[in-house]
Amino acid sequence: MSAPIARTPEPPYYAAIFTSRLGDEADGYPEMAARMEELAARSPGYLGLESVRDAGGHGITVSYWASEEAIREWKDQSQHQIAQETGRARWYAEYRVRIAKVERAYGFSGGP
Amino acid sequence: MSAPIARTPEPPYYAAIFTSRLGDEADGYPEMAARMEELAARSPGYLGLESVRDAGGHGITVSYWASEEAIREWKDQSQHQIAQETGRARWYAEYRVRIAKVERAYGFSGGP
Repeated sequence: MSAPIARTPEPPYYAAIFTSRLGDEADGYPEMAARMEELAARSPGYLGLESVRDAGGHGITVSYWASEEAIREWKDQSQHQIAQETGRARWYAEYRVRIAKVERAYGFSGGP
Repeated sequence: MSAPIARTPEPPYYAAIFTSRLGDEADGYPEMAARMEELAARSPGYLGLESVRDAGGHGITVSYWASEEAIREWKDQSQHQIAQETGRARWYAEYRVRIAKVERAYGFSGGP
């Protein structure tokens, strides 16, 4: 469930920030999450994805996209293939999605 | 180290997406991270923060701000109080910061 730091191009581009808290029922969740990431990676305009979930059930997944339109298309496509309503009721106690335009980026890479 | 889903206002507002991978040396890291969150919460324009780190050392922290200017002020202030260069060399194998304007948001809250 942990994806490394994404190699995104120079801004501007878009980010979908997905923050969630899982409920008690986790059966099938890892498979669904892996499927969502697969679908994203095959969608037009996909630039990369970062995902972390801790042992307490808190997760943040940020996916990066060339445009807002690409996010909409991915969302529509994934909703057809994975029942979103089922996902909400079954796995998530709570979630929040924020669509944001990345304006600048910087970083450091020097470790092992 | 895990912060719940932030109660942010209606967009637009700004997000600082901080993705990192820790190196082998973790001494003092939790204290530094807690201090950074404390400084953020007391900074003008702060709207909330979400933070998750997994057992493998991958972390994503997203802080939310009223404006880009507020992010710059927080960054300047925290750099004075916590030696950023020391942090890079000592704790992080790699990190990336992305500054983004949140344009829309939606979610679900129904669980326990």
